[in-house]
Amino acid sequence: MEFYYGVDMGGTTIKMGRFDREGTLLEKWEIPTRKEDGGKHIFDDIAEAILTRTAAAGGSVDSIKAVGIDIPGTIWEDGYLELSVNVGLKDIYPTEELSRRLNHVPVACGNDASIAALGEYWKGGGAGHRSMVLITLGTGVGGGIVLDGKVIAGAHGIGGEIGHLPVRFGEQEVCNCGNRGCLEQVSSATGIVRETKRTLVSSDQPSSLREIRNLTAKDVLDAAKAGDALAKSVMDTVTHYLGVAMGIVSNIVDPEVFVIGGGVSAAGQDLIEWIREAYDANMYMTKKRADVQLAQLGNDAGIYGSVRLVLPE
Amino acid sequence: MEFYYGVDMGGTTIKMGRFDREGTLLEKWEIPTRKEDGGKHIFDDIAEAILTRTAAAGGSVDSIKAVGIDIPGTIWEDGYLELSVNVGLKDIYPTEELSRRLNHVPVACGNDASIAALGEYWKGGGAGHRSMVLITLGTGVGGGIVLDGKVIAGAHGIGGEIGHLPVRFGEQEVCNCGNRGCLEQVSSATGIVRETKRTLVSSDQPSSLREIRNLTAKDVLDAAKAGDALAKSVMDTVTHYLGVAMGIVSNIVDPEVFVIGGGVSAAGQDLIEWIREAYDANMYMTKKRADVQLAQLGNDAGIYGSVRLVLPE
Repeated sequence: MEFYYGVDMGGTTIKMGRFDREGTLLEKWEIPTRKEDGGKHIFDDIAEAILTRTAAAGGSVDSIKAVGIDIPGTIWEDGYLELSVNVGLKDIYPTEELSRRLNHVPVACGNDASIAALGEYWKGGGAGHRSMVLITLGTGVGGGIVLDGKVIAGAHGIGGEIGHLPVRFGEQEVCNCGNRGCLEQVSSATGIVRETKRTLVSSDQPSSLREIRNLTAKDVLDAAKAGDALAKSVMDTVTHYLGVAMGIVSNIVDPEVFVIGGGVSAAGQDLIEWIREAYDANMYMTKKRADVQLAQLGNDAGIYGSVRLVLPE
Repeated sequence: MEFYYGVDMGGTTIKMGRFDREGTLLEKWEIPTRKEDGGKHIFDDIAEAILTRTAAAGGSVDSIKAVGIDIPGTIWEDGYLELSVNVGLKDIYPTEELSRRLNHVPVACGNDASIAALGEYWKGGGAGHRSMVLITLGTGVGGGIVLDGKVIAGAHGIGGEIGHLPVRFGEQEVCNCGNRGCLEQVSSATGIVRETKRTLVSSDQPSSLREIRNLTAKDVLDAAKAGDALAKSVMDTVTHYLGVAMGIVSNIVDPEVFVIGGGVSAAGQDLIEWIREAYDANMYMTKKRADVQLAQLGNDAGIYGSVRLVLPE
């Protein structure tokens, strides 16, 4: 029996999957992320879960062939994790921590956004393409780049940080990163709500959104799809800056396809059409351009991407 | 006897180099680019030059092991050249054209800017690094990306088009590409002259540049280095936008080193220091950042990069 595990570490839960050597998902589950004590229990918990599930499936320690893991933080090229604010880990080599708790099986590690991109490239919205850029529109804007099957993590762990491309000049508010005018400030779920509130204040245009007390990005997307002109004008702004960023990414790595994921992408095909238009309007160098697709794996992208790091070719 | 050839096709001349299998340059020369008749003589000329030089060196046709060539134009992933405005070629497969004139030796082809980057990565300013982005500041601004030894040419041939990153919002003039505010409009030699002329008109500041009739980028760089305040303020603008673009590139591919080439880079280490400062000011995600170095191969970058495409590992 040969099992491969994919582990997707988040701030609240750790998602885990058991796979066979062909990459078929055999079972998946999650455990809570114990962030207390500087995250010192996290690797014990992961190792214990893997050992338990292996035994329950009738396997032994020798059945555990390899484990891939992603972490929300900057992983250096040599595997060093400087800091993961979300899970409380710092100053460790995650692969060593996990490997020595699992009879020294091979372990590989990557940044969560990059590894989600690898998952989508392999089994999701990027399948069948040679190069792909994932853009996740959630609380923030994340990104991951996969070229010829390889994640572009970067020499200092900031490859694919698309959320922090400077696209909106004149923005006065400061982004979490310290800059002003980052893509994340306008095209994340948070950004959509902020942009809507600004527009509601600055205009007298009637809108169904004026009735809603705790406005969410979903409210704005629903209203825009239903034909609310103010909501649509907000989404025009949101997708315009996304289109600028996609034009920039195309002029640097020029992928075959962009895959759009994250909570905002639940808006579906309407959103994809708006994004395609905005991207087209921001491509000047060639008439040939990348396709734009929805992500397909949802919350499973991380376990698929993680296990892909360690599966045999 | 085993010879490998690198060919760098430009609008005026074709630079050529003969190398041994270790990549040592044995001789180099150039021939004129015969653009007439839709460039139909170009591949005959290149093949004849290679055959002549091989014979002169005491070799036979069998001594020609492989040829690498770069072309100023967009090469698709399958090797198709849609159009090279500068040399008049279009709608051909350059590798096939050259290979069938040379007894079907292996030929590889790439875009000139990307291949120059490969040359600098291998033997120039990027040597010893795993990942590098070349930015050439010449008449325009070109770019090339090399990650783990591989050129990132892109799915549609526009990988590394750093000159057309939109960085200067509010720019009214239209770039050659159709957009406004491209890096090339401000940080190329042409851009430096334009920016200087604008500044001379809009300010009353005294400057040695006011005496010069046919202002060149070199005049501006020389004046800035000599302490001319107006020239330095122009260069602050020029390097600021270059720093913005480098910050963008770092947030996408995050290279170990940027290498600065092209005619403007003749300004040397002073320019590199100004660029480092501007890049630092535009990096928000991490304190670790890429080094900035001068290009070293000058006009030979293309023949080195081309031959690297075809040398044995």
